[in-house]
Amino acid sequence: MKTVYVDNNATTRVDEQVIADMLPCFTEFYGNPSSMHHKGAESGHVLKLARQRVAKILNAEADEILFTSCGTESNNSAIRAALKANPYKKHIVTTMVEHPAVKSLCESLDKEGYRTTYLPVDSKGRLNMAAFEASLTPDTAIVSIMWANNETGTVFPIRDIARRVKEKGILFHTDAVQAVGKIPVDARDIPFDMLSLSGHKLHAPKGVGALYIRSGFKFAPYLIGGHQEHGKRGGTENIASIVALGKACEIAMNHIDEENVRVKKLRDRLETELLARIPKSFVNGDLDNRLPNTSSISFEFIEGEAILLMMNEFGICASSGSACTSGSLEPSHVLRAMGVPFTAAHGTIRFSLCRYNTEDDVDFIIEKLPGVIKRLRDMSPFWKED
Amino acid sequence: MKTVYVDNNATTRVDEQVIADMLPCFTEFYGNPSSMHHKGAESGHVLKLARQRVAKILNAEADEILFTSCGTESNNSAIRAALKANPYKKHIVTTMVEHPAVKSLCESLDKEGYRTTYLPVDSKGRLNMAAFEASLTPDTAIVSIMWANNETGTVFPIRDIARRVKEKGILFHTDAVQAVGKIPVDARDIPFDMLSLSGHKLHAPKGVGALYIRSGFKFAPYLIGGHQEHGKRGGTENIASIVALGKACEIAMNHIDEENVRVKKLRDRLETELLARIPKSFVNGDLDNRLPNTSSISFEFIEGEAILLMMNEFGICASSGSACTSGSLEPSHVLRAMGVPFTAAHGTIRFSLCRYNTEDDVDFIIEKLPGVIKRLRDMSPFWKED
Repeated sequence: MKTVYVDNNATTRVDEQVIADMLPCFTEFYGNPSSMHHKGAESGHVLKLARQRVAKILNAEADEILFTSCGTESNNSAIRAALKANPYKKHIVTTMVEHPAVKSLCESLDKEGYRTTYLPVDSKGRLNMAAFEASLTPDTAIVSIMWANNETGTVFPIRDIARRVKEKGILFHTDAVQAVGKIPVDARDIPFDMLSLSGHKLHAPKGVGALYIRSGFKFAPYLIGGHQEHGKRGGTENIASIVALGKACEIAMNHIDEENVRVKKLRDRLETELLARIPKSFVNGDLDNRLPNTSSISFEFIEGEAILLMMNEFGICASSGSACTSGSLEPSHVLRAMGVPFTAAHGTIRFSLCRYNTEDDVDFIIEKLPGVIKRLRDMSPFWKED
Repeated sequence: MKTVYVDNNATTRVDEQVIADMLPCFTEFYGNPSSMHHKGAESGHVLKLARQRVAKILNAEADEILFTSCGTESNNSAIRAALKANPYKKHIVTTMVEHPAVKSLCESLDKEGYRTTYLPVDSKGRLNMAAFEASLTPDTAIVSIMWANNETGTVFPIRDIARRVKEKGILFHTDAVQAVGKIPVDARDIPFDMLSLSGHKLHAPKGVGALYIRSGFKFAPYLIGGHQEHGKRGGTENIASIVALGKACEIAMNHIDEENVRVKKLRDRLETELLARIPKSFVNGDLDNRLPNTSSISFEFIEGEAILLMMNEFGICASSGSACTSGSLEPSHVLRAMGVPFTAAHGTIRFSLCRYNTEDDVDFIIEKLPGVIKRLRDMSPFWKED
């Protein structure tokens, strides 16, 4: 079956060059980098190179990069370390539209005696900056605000946010899992203390992530064990996947321009054509500040899951909101926070493109989707053509 | 350079069949298993198969297997979940010879208000069973005792230990990272509640592990995020490495007999010949209850690290104790707990073989090592030939 994969915010296909860099790690550079022999040294060498490459995409220093097993671990580790570094502070600031790796953790911490402020957003998904300013208190241990939203692609004004948090001397973490590799991220320009990224969102394999930790922050490990990662994470380093992440970052750096020109153009054409052909449809998010690859479109009066299944019959792979919250019958917490009406939130599809997508892919979706929506609406008891 | 790799308790080379099973996961089965399209379904399918394969090596049910990022995460998650399940119990029982993934975690928990009993071992590394019996109290939340020691290969009487712990209604976890794939492990025969295993110790890649969780135990996730792994671990599943772990378990099951006959014979010959040729050398551990692949040999009056470096010049890769504690000048905590004299503990080498080792490998070590030891002893101020 033909596959048109436009679900790249969920996960990506691994780049062929990334695979080529990984392969020798399974049978050649397989030593434990902690070992005192040449097999260990070889692994230590490729590990070091990967760390430099990941640092480079963030304009950071190599020793500010901690390798983790995924974005969720990066986010959990960052927030827990901030709380450990501030044992007398019990307040956390985050937003209503974070990924579950931050949101569910904060909800869990609320049960352990912490108090989290979940900042609201407006109908375009823009952060309420007055509420943000008002939320920062002397009891605030950490502010964790995502760089770009996984569902709508909305990009928050992270430079401004980070600077205001740092003016108050509070730790600032950003979940940049959807941003890194798609838009520029600069640790020298923007004073975040910690930043999470994930390999499988930028054509590295699943199961590897990184946490940027600004020099000087006394980071308490979340996985406690051996002395690996300079005492910041126990567990034998995942050499092959780390090498893959390094290569993927190097490649992504070289593709950010393409992402912001060619991929953006594809996304814009897809969006414009679908809106023109399908009545009662609209785009969610801040259209002026948005990832170049993401489009969240609501089709009123039908169910997103039905749309997905019918698109899948044509080989089109997209999603209804985040993969990490799929399986739930609740509409997306992101769209609810934006006040998207129930009848539209339920029929929302996220298209997330990547550098592998072509004009043909977009043509195919434009050709097939209007018929899918029409068929479903014809069956819907809620739909009445105007 | 010729490589003779006998450091398989540190990490292993990935099996070619395992790589073959992984490869399609990077470019074909790359979907997010949570996604509602055929790319997601394909990943979900291979994930399910891998879970069944891992379950099989433990004689367990597939839904008792939680995939993690490593043995350290499995151990940390197990102990934290046990404490969370028993919020009013503050006592932990473990041993003095655990891997840092358990030992350092317990030391850290001791600072958080928990109280850990570190059970002693005798000079052969055998657990003091009277101390074990005496340690179990109504305040004990969890007993975590390793199946087989990573440094000496000593196998603890886990069936007996598990049964006695369960008689008292206490949760029992075992770090079986070194046992699984080398000796039989049976969840239906031995009543452990949780068991940790790691992929890279059995010819799967680094960066993947599993935690067996007995049905019925209410496991609280350690990585909090999406609903993945039936709510037991947030984070997109590491499909390729999980598939690799499944295949590696399947292969290991078919090789346990070889491990216990051919590999054991190689190990025994290596040991016998080295002891015969090198004066003032002895084997550490319980020779009657030991992993078939492991030999810990002390060479008195010289430094293990010097031995390793000189062996490395011949391409021989071994270790002085655990890779996870290397870089430290302290002698191994395992050997110290066994009361191995300082002058011998420092000169201890761990040889850990695998199914890839050959008679030639053993011959080569037997040929080279006596000269290495003699040269170092000739330089040592502490050595005097009798």
